[in-house]
Amino acid sequence: MIVIEFTSRQNKIIDIVQEREPITSQEIAEILKVTRATLRPDLAILTMSGALDARPKVGYFYTGKPHMNMLAQQAKNIKVKEIMSLPTVVTEDVSVYNAIVTMFLEDTGAIYVVSNGSLAGVVSRKDFLKNAIGGIDVNKVPVGMVMTRMPNITTIFLEENIIEAAIKIVNHEVDSLPVVEKVTIDGKEKLKVIGKISKSNITKLFVELCKE
Amino acid sequence: MIVIEFTSRQNKIIDIVQEREPITSQEIAEILKVTRATLRPDLAILTMSGALDARPKVGYFYTGKPHMNMLAQQAKNIKVKEIMSLPTVVTEDVSVYNAIVTMFLEDTGAIYVVSNGSLAGVVSRKDFLKNAIGGIDVNKVPVGMVMTRMPNITTIFLEENIIEAAIKIVNHEVDSLPVVEKVTIDGKEKLKVIGKISKSNITKLFVELCKE
Repeated sequence: MIVIEFTSRQNKIIDIVQEREPITSQEIAEILKVTRATLRPDLAILTMSGALDARPKVGYFYTGKPHMNMLAQQAKNIKVKEIMSLPTVVTEDVSVYNAIVTMFLEDTGAIYVVSNGSLAGVVSRKDFLKNAIGGIDVNKVPVGMVMTRMPNITTIFLEENIIEAAIKIVNHEVDSLPVVEKVTIDGKEKLKVIGKISKSNITKLFVELCKE
Repeated sequence: MIVIEFTSRQNKIIDIVQEREPITSQEIAEILKVTRATLRPDLAILTMSGALDARPKVGYFYTGKPHMNMLAQQAKNIKVKEIMSLPTVVTEDVSVYNAIVTMFLEDTGAIYVVSNGSLAGVVSRKDFLKNAIGGIDVNKVPVGMVMTRMPNITTIFLEENIIEAAIKIVNHEVDSLPVVEKVTIDGKEKLKVIGKISKSNITKLFVELCKE
């Protein structure tokens, strides 16, 4: 996969074809006052890139889709498991105060609450702040009382790609997603928390991909 | 700017040139058992893309840098002002409680504190949470007492590009940056808050750029 920039002659050819399609290479050559041989590499590039379509004995057509999205192609091949962070996990009976302390110690924006090895809930900085100023006794109330509970949690699987993760984060207006895998516990299908993918991971990836 | 995929013959040509550089088109044609005319469009694409370098009367060389970064080129042209959000602003004397309420009402992760029209400080959800559980009287303490104060704030200008914004967010480990412009107040140069750029803006942009 490579990226090239059209030359000014190639852009002129696109304009000509757009206006006068179908048009033969001979006609294009006459307009540009060059030989057909001169145009051959240009037309090869324009058809290879998908900007033009060539039909034998008819001429060139403009397809209108010269741009392929390289970022999308690249990002589709990056899986959640490749850029995810470690999750911060507590059990339901931990006090809100201790969960907040854990959040600060791990410098994370979300705490995942597990019960019997599977994902039971999520608490964000926003949830904690709301409860802290709401006047609850943070030392007595367990985190299980203030968390957002399954199944109201947006999760993502290890093998999904990071575009899907970014779309979920944007659409569900959350800061991060628990990365999960399916496990069977006591004959029931549950979700085990394996990682975390957040806006930070996406922003870091964006910086990486922009590096030249 | 377009993206194309090399054909298998073009990849073969790269391999041949890598091994035997400098090599003439006549020699490449002989190895591939095709005519020079057949190779002309391929060699045009390979030199245009930067994969090969052609020196008159010497032959083709492998440059080793066929990949240009399209994302970086695209992102460099997107300015902070094009994707920023509106800032949420309070004055220094507002109580921590009211600032938190404002934060929830505006559903934002950072409050900017202004004094005489210019940026004086920033408070994040994290700062508020730390103070809320730290036992201060959120109704009495003004936000000016808990904020991170200038000049210890990482800012970005309207005209900077979003790669620079993303790099600052990652390197300074913040969730957002105040977008500012220089103003002169009482003969002194100050920063006026115009917007906010956050990991959310970058994540949304990433999703946009990945759309096909």
